[in-house]
Order: sequence, then C-alpha cells, then structure tokens
Amino acid sequence: DADRVLLGHGGGGRATADLIGRLFVPAFGNEVLAALEDQATVRLPGGDGVPAPRIAISTDAFVVRPLFFPGGDIGRLAVHGTINDLVVGGAEPLYLAAAFILEEGLALDDLGRIVASMRDSCAEAGVILVAGDTKVVDRGKGDGVYITTTGVGLAPEGRSLSIRDARPGDRILVSGTIGDHGIAIMSVREGIEFETALESDTAPLGGLVRAMLGACPGIRAMRDPTRGGVSAALNELAAASRVGVTLLEGSIPVRPEVRGACEMLGLDPLDVANEGKLLAVSPPEDADALLAAMRSHPLGRDAAIIGRVVAEHPGMVTLRSVVGGERIVSMLSGEQLPRIC
Amino acid sequence: DADRVLLGHGGGGRATADLIGRLFVPAFGNEVLAALEDQATVRLPGGDGVPAPRIAISTDAFVVRPLFFPGGDIGRLAVHGTINDLVVGGAEPLYLAAAFILEEGLALDDLGRIVASMRDSCAEAGVILVAGDTKVVDRGKGDGVYITTTGVGLAPEGRSLSIRDARPGDRILVSGTIGDHGIAIMSVREGIEFETALESDTAPLGGLVRAMLGACPGIRAMRDPTRGGVSAALNELAAASRVGVTLLEGSIPVRPEVRGACEMLGLDPLDVANEGKLLAVSPPEDADALLAAMRSHPLGRDAAIIGRVVAEHPGMVTLRSVVGGERIVSMLSGEQLPRIC
Ligand SMILES: Nc1ncnc2c1ncn2[C@@H]1O[C@H](COP(=O)(O)OP(=O)(O)OP(=O)(O)O)[C@@H](O)[C@H]1O
Ligand SMILES: Nc1ncnc2c1ncn2[C@@H]1O[C@H](COP(=O)(O)OP(=O)(O)OP(=O)(O)O)[C@@H](O)[C@H]1O
Ligand SMILES: [Mg+2]
Ligand SMILES: [Mg+2]
Ligand SMILES: [Mg+2]
Ligand SMILES: [Mg+2]
Ligand SMILES: [Mg+2]
Ligand SMILES: [Mg+2]
Repeated sequence: DADRVLLGHGGGGRATADLIGRLFVPAFGNEVLAALEDQATVRLPGGDGVPAPRIAISTDAFVVRPLFFPGGDIGRLAVHGTINDLVVGGAEPLYLAAAFILEEGLALDDLGRIVASMRDSCAEAGVILVAGDTKVVDRGKGDGVYITTTGVGLAPEGRSLSIRDARPGDRILVSGTIGDHGIAIMSVREGIEFETALESDTAPLGGLVRAMLGACPGIRAMRDPTRGGVSAALNELAAASRVGVTLLEGSIPVRPEVRGACEMLGLDPLDVANEGKLLAVSPPEDADALLAAMRSHPLGRDAAIIGRVVAEHPGMVTLRSVVGGERIVSMLSGEQLPRIC
Repeated sequence: DADRVLLGHGGGGRATADLIGRLFVPAFGNEVLAALEDQATVRLPGGDGVPAPRIAISTDAFVVRPLFFPGGDIGRLAVHGTINDLVVGGAEPLYLAAAFILEEGLALDDLGRIVASMRDSCAEAGVILVAGDTKVVDRGKGDGVYITTTGVGLAPEGRSLSIRDARPGDRILVSGTIGDHGIAIMSVREGIEFETALESDTAPLGGLVRAMLGACPGIRAMRDPTRGGVSAALNELAAASRVGVTLLEGSIPVRPEVRGACEMLGLDPLDVANEGKLLAVSPPEDADALLAAMRSHPLGRDAAIIGRVVAEHPGMVTLRSVVGGERIVSMLSGEQLPRIC
C-alpha cells in the first residue's frame, strides 16, 4: 500500500507535504515552486528596457462534499480559496480561470446555483472570471462537480511576504476563531447537530489583508490555514524559516461548538481546516497595532495574538497549555483529516 | 433529463456550446469570456504612466481514459493542451499551474510517470510549472487522476488573432491529418487493432505557430480543433465571424487507418478530436506562403489548404464532396463524442 495514493495524501498534513516534496517538486524542479508558498510570484519578461511587472499565480482544485453546506457552497469556496492564496502573499487578485469537471446526472439547477455563487464571490472580490473549461465524467466518477480555479494577480513591486522570513521574537496572529469550516463540513457529514448554527467561515480576505498591510507594512508573512489547519501552516512556516513557534493555548480563539465537536470527533481544533482565516507573522513592535487593525475589520473581529517565534527548537511548533505544560504540535499525517475543500 | 448534466455536455459539440452559452457566460458576464476564444487576453493594470503588458490565460481539465495511450499520456496532454490554447492566440506561454485530483489507490508509479511526462513536455515547450495543488478523492471516484492545467503567457503588443476576424475569400488551412488523437483513444477503448500503430498527435504547437507568424504575420485566426474536431472549430469560427465556410473534401488529410476506424465506428473524421493540430485562416494572397512555411515545419509536413471563407450561408460550414455534391457540416450534439481529453 506504500506505493499507492491514499486518502491521507489529500489531507493537507504530513502525507500531502511528503508527496509534494518527494514526487512533484523534484520533477518540476524550479525555485519558485520549491518555495512552496501559497502563490507563485514571477516576473514577466521585460522588453526594450521597460520594467515588466511581477504577477502572482495560484491554483486549487475543490472536491468538497456536500456541494452545499452551512455558510457556503463549492463555488464560493473555489473563488475564495484561490483569491486568498493570492492575497496572503500581498498580491492584488485580478483574473480567475475555472475548470469544471461535471458528473453525469448533476442537476443543472444545482450547477446554476453554484455558478451564481461564483459570480457573486467574484464580484465581491473584484476579480473577473475570464477563462473556463467544461468536462463531463460518467455517473459515479465524480461527486457532482469538481472545480479547479486558478487566479492571476499583480504582485506589487518591493513587497515581500514569505514563510521563510519569520524571525525569533516575531508574534503570531490569527484573524479569528479556528476550525469553523472543517467542523461545519464534518458536522453535516457526520450528522452532528449544534444548538447554534455553525457555519463555514469561507470569505475573501483581500480587504482584511489591505487593512493589515496599511497598518503594518512590515508584516513578515501571512498564510491561510486551510487543509491541515493551523498546525500544518505553522509547521510549514517553522520549517521554511528554520525557527521554532510557541503557541499559548489560552489565547487561541475557538468557538464552543467547535471545541465540543472536536472532542466528540477526537480532533484538535489546531488541525481542523479554515477557509476565511489567516495567520500573520509580525515584528514584535508592530503586533499591537496590527491586532488593532485586524479587530477593526469585520473579518478580524476575533483576531488574537496566539504565540511567538522562538530561536529554540527550529522547525518545531509547541503549545503551552493553560495549566502550564508544553507539548509538541505536529502536523497530522493525513488519514485523520477528512475532505473539507 | 433535460435538467441534468449529460455526457454530451462534455463532448465539445453543440451541447457543450449551449451549456457554456446559456449557463456559464451569462453568469460570469464579461466581454473577454464572452468572446469564447481559446484563451483570454487581458491587460495588466498600468501604474505611473508605464504601459502594462497584455497577458493570455487559458485553462483545461483533463479526464482522459486510459491514462496512458499510444503516443502519449494524460500528463503530456495536459501540458500540450493548455499551451496550444495560448499559442494559437499568438501568445508566448511562460508559466503553468497544475491541479491534481488523485483517486485513492492510484499507483504512485503511474503518477510518477505522468509527472515525468509533464516535466518533459514543459521543458520542450519552454514553460515553467510554478504552482500546483493535490487533492485525493475516494476509490471509485475519479479515473486514477484528473489534471487541470492553467497557462499564463505574454500576448505581444499589436498582435490580434481572433475567430471573429475571418473574411470572405480567406483560406482555411489545417496543419496535418485529422482525427488521429480521437481515434487513437477510441481504438484503445474499443479494442480496435490497426495494421500500423496509430498514435495520438499530441504535441506542443508553439514552434509551428512561430514559423507561421514569421512567414505570414497577417494570419487572421488560428484554433486547435480538439473536442468536437474540425467541425466544431469551424462552426464556431463561422458563427463568430458571421461568415460561411466551404471545405473541399478531397483536400482534407486523413490517415487511412483513421478513415477506416471512423467507418467502423460510424463517425466523420471532421468530428473527431485532434490534439497536436491547428486550423488557420489566412488572407488569400498569403495562403501559399503560409502553406509552404507550415510544410517546412516537422509538425506541419502534411499541412493543406482545405477550404475557404465565403460570404454565403453565414454561420454555416459546408463540404463539397469529391463527386461534387455539397452538404452541411454541422456540429455534433455531443453524445456521439467520447471522452478523449
Ligand atoms: N501536485 C503539485 N505539484 C506541484 N506543486 C504542488 C502540488 N501540490 C501542491 N503544490 C505546491 O505546494 C504548496 C502547498 O500546496 P497546498 O495546496 O498545500 O497549499 P494551499 O493551496 O495553500 O492549501 P489548500 O490546497 O489546502 O488551500 C504550494 O506552493 C503549491 O504550489
Ligand atoms: N465552464 C465554463 N465557464 C466559462 N467559460 C467556459 C466554460 N467552459 C468553457 N468556457 C469558455 O468557452 C470557450 C470554449 O471552451 P472549450 O473548452 O470548448 O475550448 P478549448 O479549451 O479550446 O477546447 P478543449 O477543451 O476541447 O481543449 C473558451 O473561451 C472557454 O474559456
Ligand atoms: Mg493557502
Ligand atoms: Mg489554497
Ligand atoms: Mg477547454
Ligand atoms: Mg482550443
Ligand atoms: Mg483546450
Ligand atoms: Mg492548494
């Protein structure tokens, strides 16, 4: 079985990172890809001494089940997800391409609703969908529809945000409660009922990022903690920057419903996917101003400083619990992470 | 059933065009998409009086079965297909993004071969794969792997190639034998055996296009006749340019094996998919020079002038048979067209 694709390879945890690092990156071998940022930033070739702009490119396939869930649907997710991978790199998203793999038998009405969601999400984020593709696979071979979106944006000159740039002393901020998207999806699939309605947090993060960069141009890095959750994102950051990260458990915002569902499902909220949240790394002297800027944005109301970058244990993330103990926050291997995007 | 997705919606014929025209284009409503060119050409926003370059974007999902076939595999197809949609618009392909939807149980060895093909195809075409994504779906969903590639290229200033620009009197050229890809795939699936090996024609068309534009900068339009074949591509051209097209049956290059298989399968070679071929529309005075340029390129050795643009019957394609009769070449509705890319 070691020589076959497993569900865990898609979980966004260690198995995914291994597959990418061992199979894909060596084959395609180039530095832009090997940096494993949320988006690729490349310069267009210039002509006649004219400086050519830098663009950012990002792609994601969306295979979520169910297609419609509390707080959103696959179309909204497909637009937000790709836009967010561009904006967390400081790029301004401009154009989107979308390829649809439709399953024979999908109700055109459902497809219409998904496409309407995509249209609204594009309009809201100010991006234009300029190219598409439509394939159909046999009944049973899809899950209604898979959508791959690719975004192209402008990467402003001189702006560098990279998961390699975290330094000891920096603060780690999160823009709000964690685990909402993953638990919203899992609760539909597992039939868990909440007293209050738990919704996916899917949202376009461009406005929040603009506010953050306005208040604190010195932000070192941002990342949207999607598959694999906060654990995966911070482990990747720790590895890329060769630093340690220490989180303070008590400071991490988690909704009570999410905490409850995680206990029921045997999950750690740190491992659960988010869709409309971001992590930011800030120099210590800017952290309070950045936090204030985040909290004054509707998508950052519950923002918090959740930890710091340390020189100790490079490549490793630890969590200091409310009662004082410290434990390692490792990346889940993958099987435990259900398909949530 | 009229309200559900049918296999025919993915065939690249009339049903596909209807779905795109009725559902997708109105929803995403913008002129770039509505032009339905092989690629979207957009200008980057300029700053400080600096003229910003134009870029071209194209996306395609690949869902072909089997994954490996005579002459290629899904990886090669996924790279060539998207590159070709860029180059037929006159753009210079630069960057590629690839999103993989893997089926649980796929042999990593097969994935490795596919990825190696993609690497080789990228290198051959001079494009860099800078962004990717990896999702896994349950065993039974998917067909081993679906790959969506998106290409970004530079669209040279002042170059305009559009399916709206054909004019009466123009000549229609094809770069070689038609139907090879579709019949290569179908013959594997149907177990048809040929005396000689019939292979997919999948190939990157950038070099051929460069040679063509060098010899004849006045080319009006090019298109790669993939799903739906030459019929679909020329019907789209006729509609977009509001002109008629008349083909001369005897001038259309078709391999004997393809002709034979088409008879066996009840197909017209004009409806069968190609992957490494292009159609070009040329002003009459340039057609011979263009043909000569095509024939001196390895991928255009069998190029031919196969018809002309006429003022009569706008929006319609006709075929003058070897014995003199004339019939309408309509776009197939879709069900007859198997999944070949
Ligand atoms: N199949 C692949 N081939 C090449 N590079 C890949 C592939 N899959 C992922 N990558 C690269 O690995 C990095 C991480 O990808 P990943 O999909 O985990 O990030 P993400 O899109 O931010 O997360 P998510 O997909 O959960 O939204 C990116 O830089 C991406 O370009
Ligand atoms: N789902 C979609 N949403 C929006 N536009 C679409 C969609 N599918 C296709 N299009 C647009 O319709 C046009 C034709 O697409 P199509 O996929 O048929 O062309 P192609 O890629 O050249 O052919 P093939 O997919 O067979 O290689 C393109 O301009 C494309 O951007
Ligand atoms: Mg991301
Ligand atoms: Mg993403
Ligand atoms: Mg297409
Ligand atoms: Mg095309
Ligand atoms: Mg195409
Ligand atoms: Mg991704």
